[in-house]
Amino acid sequence: MAGQETTSKSSYSMSSGDGPNSYPLNSNFQRGIVEAAKEPVRKAIQDSLELTTISNDTFAIADFGCSIGSNTLIATQNIIEAVKHKYHDRPPLEFQVFFNDLVNNDFNTLFRNLPPSPEFFAAGVPGAFQNRLFPKASLHIGFSSYALHWISKVPEEVVDSNSSAWNKDSIHCTGFSKEVAMAFSAQFRKDMENFLNARAQELVGGGLLVIAMPGLPEGTPCSQTYYGVINDIMGYCLLDMVKEGLISEEKLQSFNLPMYYPPINELEAVLERNADFTIEKIDPSFGSNTWIPTTPSLPKLVTSLARGIMGEIVKEYFGIEIMDSIFERYHKKLLENLNNYADIVKPLGIFVILKRKAI
Amino acid sequence: MAGQETTSKSSYSMSSGDGPNSYPLNSNFQRGIVEAAKEPVRKAIQDSLELTTISNDTFAIADFGCSIGSNTLIATQNIIEAVKHKYHDRPPLEFQVFFNDLVNNDFNTLFRNLPPSPEFFAAGVPGAFQNRLFPKASLHIGFSSYALHWISKVPEEVVDSNSSAWNKDSIHCTGFSKEVAMAFSAQFRKDMENFLNARAQELVGGGLLVIAMPGLPEGTPCSQTYYGVINDIMGYCLLDMVKEGLISEEKLQSFNLPMYYPPINELEAVLERNADFTIEKIDPSFGSNTWIPTTPSLPKLVTSLARGIMGEIVKEYFGIEIMDSIFERYHKKLLENLNNYADIVKPLGIFVILKRKAI
Repeated sequence: MAGQETTSKSSYSMSSGDGPNSYPLNSNFQRGIVEAAKEPVRKAIQDSLELTTISNDTFAIADFGCSIGSNTLIATQNIIEAVKHKYHDRPPLEFQVFFNDLVNNDFNTLFRNLPPSPEFFAAGVPGAFQNRLFPKASLHIGFSSYALHWISKVPEEVVDSNSSAWNKDSIHCTGFSKEVAMAFSAQFRKDMENFLNARAQELVGGGLLVIAMPGLPEGTPCSQTYYGVINDIMGYCLLDMVKEGLISEEKLQSFNLPMYYPPINELEAVLERNADFTIEKIDPSFGSNTWIPTTPSLPKLVTSLARGIMGEIVKEYFGIEIMDSIFERYHKKLLENLNNYADIVKPLGIFVILKRKAI
Repeated sequence: MAGQETTSKSSYSMSSGDGPNSYPLNSNFQRGIVEAAKEPVRKAIQDSLELTTISNDTFAIADFGCSIGSNTLIATQNIIEAVKHKYHDRPPLEFQVFFNDLVNNDFNTLFRNLPPSPEFFAAGVPGAFQNRLFPKASLHIGFSSYALHWISKVPEEVVDSNSSAWNKDSIHCTGFSKEVAMAFSAQFRKDMENFLNARAQELVGGGLLVIAMPGLPEGTPCSQTYYGVINDIMGYCLLDMVKEGLISEEKLQSFNLPMYYPPINELEAVLERNADFTIEKIDPSFGSNTWIPTTPSLPKLVTSLARGIMGEIVKEYFGIEIMDSIFERYHKKLLENLNNYADIVKPLGIFVILKRKAI
């Protein structure tokens, strides 16, 4: 679960370590996703996974954008159980699980979070998942849970004051400027193509690629959804700090979040263009019950979620010294504006099963 | 390059990070080992590696006890070049390299030290190398450079005041007490057997296991060699601190270094007992020119080496607050006693090539 980068210097990952502001404690939302994926993943393994042989009785699984928490372990365990169940009448399998995330992900914490005697051989794989990370035909199942909305870099034009796609008034793709949206969309498309091409080489024929990711209903600007609001509030807080002279205006204007919540039709288009996979399933209503409930604790929960998601990026870009202040402001702004968010549109949870065609 | 543990709570690895006292800066000695191994490793790959097939054109290499520095990369690169040279007339290979060390090794730093576009797919594998770490028959070459003298735990009897093997007056296996030496020797033998049994399952038939490790001439007590002296000086420094009331006597008496420099005959015996490998080579005079020269800078170099090797263990056991003081004392004691070390015996560098028998 991390910002991914291929060519730019900037690269982000989720907050490190086990502290109170770290990612694992903020990943209850992510946990909901993982739980919601359990049954459809089991079904996909039972119905769609189609391996002719399993060399050496070794079954290889990779999580692309694993972060450091326990969610990747729950997802992994679910896959292993389903695979064991499917192949219960053949010689026992050995499992090898590869945990991938950017090189600046906190792999030390990830490794410490592994169970003492896991029933699989574990390995960490550092690197951007838009690139090749594994040898040819070496994986049986790849999965990625809420990571593919992180794009490899912020499109240059959206932070270029001379471009018509300059995203002057926002720190993300709100969906209200066509030029900005096109720039983000193009980067997302390129990243997804690279991701699919790399995985097509790494997966064996008949192997599965399981994707859970956030997205938008067709035609809905991001900022009319929860996702956009979460980003917008951060933008407003940063703008306040500019007004107070705590951050320079130039600094803020050169900042955008390297993320894009794709409209469902854009994601479908890029999946359909790929010739190496058959689409076994696209479910745009996945995990729709896992969104944070509108309880009195909402502002605290959302602030915590925002800190988990954006904390590292904000810290890297604006400096550690503003961190506590910015999230105090964030919480306050949410509290003040709760009533404004009553009509907000629910974003999509998109669940995809792709099968690698026979090679 | 790390203390290895299987069952005990204690586990050590080399100093973390990139700071001035960290392991990479102190690993010039290790670099000498790696350089000395280049040519014999190339020769072994050319002459002894005997693969009937290479599935998927993927060649897998693992470093057992890799630590965090650049030495593992140099060794890896050397192996890759030799393999490419050997198989130049077949379809190009893809390489996957697994870097193994204990779970508390600083994998984050290791990953940051990887070249930006390595010509191999990299993975980190956390865990004690006395255990299985990889699926069956999944590796073509395994190697371990100066790591196997770290035993998985300090034998219980050497820190038990009721045992005849109580190592009351030393923090390591000096070789002067037969009971203590037998306890360390037994642990080493068990660890080596576990290591060889695990690797026998993980390597393909015809694959190689390359071991470089320190050892002793038969019949020479450790403390008559450089290695023993390095440990003894640490013991004297800790004893001084006990006398000054800075460390409790009980604390010191319950401390031993989890390492054993095996006499060459003991290592040979355990290798010969293993039925899964053929011994292609045992060279007990390996790297004999890589020992630190007796220059005026010796005390500084040895202190730096000792800190790199023992720093983490001492810190974990006695607390970070004594760290600077202990190594200042260490340097001073070396300076004062230089003349006493003129007759010291050179330890052995042992280089081993094992070939996995056909399965």
